[in-house]
Amino acid sequence: MARVHNFNAGPAALPLAALERAQREMLDFEGTGMSIIEHSHRGKAYEQVHNEAISLLRELLGISNDYDVLFLQGGASHQFAMIPMNFLGTGRSGDYVITGGWSEKAYEEAQRIGDVRVAATTIKDKRYTRIPRQDELAIAPGAAYVHITTNNTLFGTQWHYVPETAGAPLFADMSSDFLWKPIDVNRYAFIYAGAQKNIGPSGIAVIVARKDLVASGRKDIPKIFQYRTFAENNSLYNTPPTFAIYLVRNVLAVTKEQGGLAAVEEKNRRKGDLLYATLDAMADFYRAPVDKDSRSYMNVVFRLPTEDLEKRFVSEAAKQGMVGLAGHRITGGIRVSLYNAVELGSVECLVAFMKDFAARAG
Amino acid sequence: MARVHNFNAGPAALPLAALERAQREMLDFEGTGMSIIEHSHRGKAYEQVHNEAISLLRELLGISNDYDVLFLQGGASHQFAMIPMNFLGTGRSGDYVITGGWSEKAYEEAQRIGDVRVAATTIKDKRYTRIPRQDELAIAPGAAYVHITTNNTLFGTQWHYVPETAGAPLFADMSSDFLWKPIDVNRYAFIYAGAQKNIGPSGIAVIVARKDLVASGRKDIPKIFQYRTFAENNSLYNTPPTFAIYLVRNVLAVTKEQGGLAAVEEKNRRKGDLLYATLDAMADFYRAPVDKDSRSYMNVVFRLPTEDLEKRFVSEAAKQGMVGLAGHRITGGIRVSLYNAVELGSVECLVAFMKDFAARAG
Repeated sequence: MARVHNFNAGPAALPLAALERAQREMLDFEGTGMSIIEHSHRGKAYEQVHNEAISLLRELLGISNDYDVLFLQGGASHQFAMIPMNFLGTGRSGDYVITGGWSEKAYEEAQRIGDVRVAATTIKDKRYTRIPRQDELAIAPGAAYVHITTNNTLFGTQWHYVPETAGAPLFADMSSDFLWKPIDVNRYAFIYAGAQKNIGPSGIAVIVARKDLVASGRKDIPKIFQYRTFAENNSLYNTPPTFAIYLVRNVLAVTKEQGGLAAVEEKNRRKGDLLYATLDAMADFYRAPVDKDSRSYMNVVFRLPTEDLEKRFVSEAAKQGMVGLAGHRITGGIRVSLYNAVELGSVECLVAFMKDFAARAG
Repeated sequence: MARVHNFNAGPAALPLAALERAQREMLDFEGTGMSIIEHSHRGKAYEQVHNEAISLLRELLGISNDYDVLFLQGGASHQFAMIPMNFLGTGRSGDYVITGGWSEKAYEEAQRIGDVRVAATTIKDKRYTRIPRQDELAIAPGAAYVHITTNNTLFGTQWHYVPETAGAPLFADMSSDFLWKPIDVNRYAFIYAGAQKNIGPSGIAVIVARKDLVASGRKDIPKIFQYRTFAENNSLYNTPPTFAIYLVRNVLAVTKEQGGLAAVEEKNRRKGDLLYATLDAMADFYRAPVDKDSRSYMNVVFRLPTEDLEKRFVSEAAKQGMVGLAGHRITGGIRVSLYNAVELGSVECLVAFMKDFAARAG
């Protein structure tokens, strides 16, 4: 069948051109007579792909040589453990800002490992509907790091400012909005992101971290859990997930061709603005619970008047080729994920459906 | 170009039919209008693939319900750390049999974590040319486990018996010969394997472990490093590497179609026997250093009279479409990896070349 409008929360839609390239090269990568999957990770063919992925990332985000760019396995959940293993234990705390399910998990895992604190939380009635203000952040003097989750897939919130941290290194889980727009990397000490939203398949995480910080990590933990191991070996200490990195390369190459992150941001803002304007215009039928200044451009969540209507909404949309709209099992409702590869046309299609649905059901 | 004869040591050749299936379905998985890469790991389409991969593995290996089958990220190197984290710390030792570079790494990582011992080593002049005999294994009374590496990719040795362990659970890193033949899983307590030799792409490791053992692991370590976390969540605690598991499924399905592990073993023995017979017949030119009863059917290593001839051998073979023949950088020489997907025809082609090369150069 034709490709659907894919609003999945992750793994999620990827650029068609990146997939088509993978399809074309699946049996024979650049005339080598084998798939990239079958190439040695120590061979020239793969190493070129590996290094191109890193240099494309450096170019797109404007990452300076003061930062390492690393590929690790295990997704963001592995980093939840590796970060405190590497950077706690010196009597200083890891300070977590809790804004949703993922920062809860990061905090809970870190609790098993070292001295952690809650710098702020916006939980209320088991929901998170906003990002805290700067003046709400209580950061311990000399904290080892301050950890934020820049976008919250479950509750549809997103940080729209970079917090001041009283001198502590800022760590950011950007899994669900990495590369959604240009950012000033220098404001962060440590950025990490599972790839499966904006830049590739699941099974690979990208780390962008200050070199001096990586080098300062603990050495009394298993070697495979030290970030320095990956930094010292260009992420080739052990066999990396070669096909996943190849696909990331494909996605980054498409991103560059299409104008880089400025163009990505413009597209993302048009998609999000259109959808939020639609919700606001029909606020008697569609209820968007998130504070306006905390609204996410990656995951737009809303409710309908009844759960029954929500079920009908999801099922009728699916019949029209729009999939992935059911909210997370914890939150219920509707969730529209608008990652980079989702086209404006898909949102226009959804908006037309929403108007029609509300007219019929409202 | 045409597909080459791929003798890579890993990542390595995969069955053409498994790759062709991936190619066919790359943009539209089973009429869903999206790639399997773009499917949610919580959706029906992916879950069916996930569960099929597990059930195919259970069927092919005859794995009973006393065992968990788990998918983890990070390759074998992660298990080097996770195994001692989960199973040491109770005053009992982890006993390692050192037969090559990978068991050295497993042992060194475990040293950072708990009480470990060397149950045996066959190192001699920085080389490993044999597997130890049963009577050489010195296992501590009440050892938490005995760890072996069933096949050694660097030095071309392979265990051809299952050791007695004085009652200690037997742990086996089968990364480079998993599924090379039928085995009695019940002889082992814990089997693990990075997929990138016989069953799939890099980026995914398979664990087959006794349920009671998994449940007995330590609970005071990070949740993501507890095997039970994966067992309790059918390997869906966090987002798994969905495409890697999908490809494993494809490879296992082909393996079953082609007659299961009995057929795999027959093919592998024919390939290995042909190559070793060739080496033995030309022992004045090709020197196979491994003891005959320790020879690997997965990685056949040998030397030529000079390093210069070895370079010519590799380069001339490549021109004839036979690639991946250079030995590991630590060992030098020639290494021919004969994983499951390598066809007998490729070995016949190589043997013809070897005869010709020796006739010209010998």
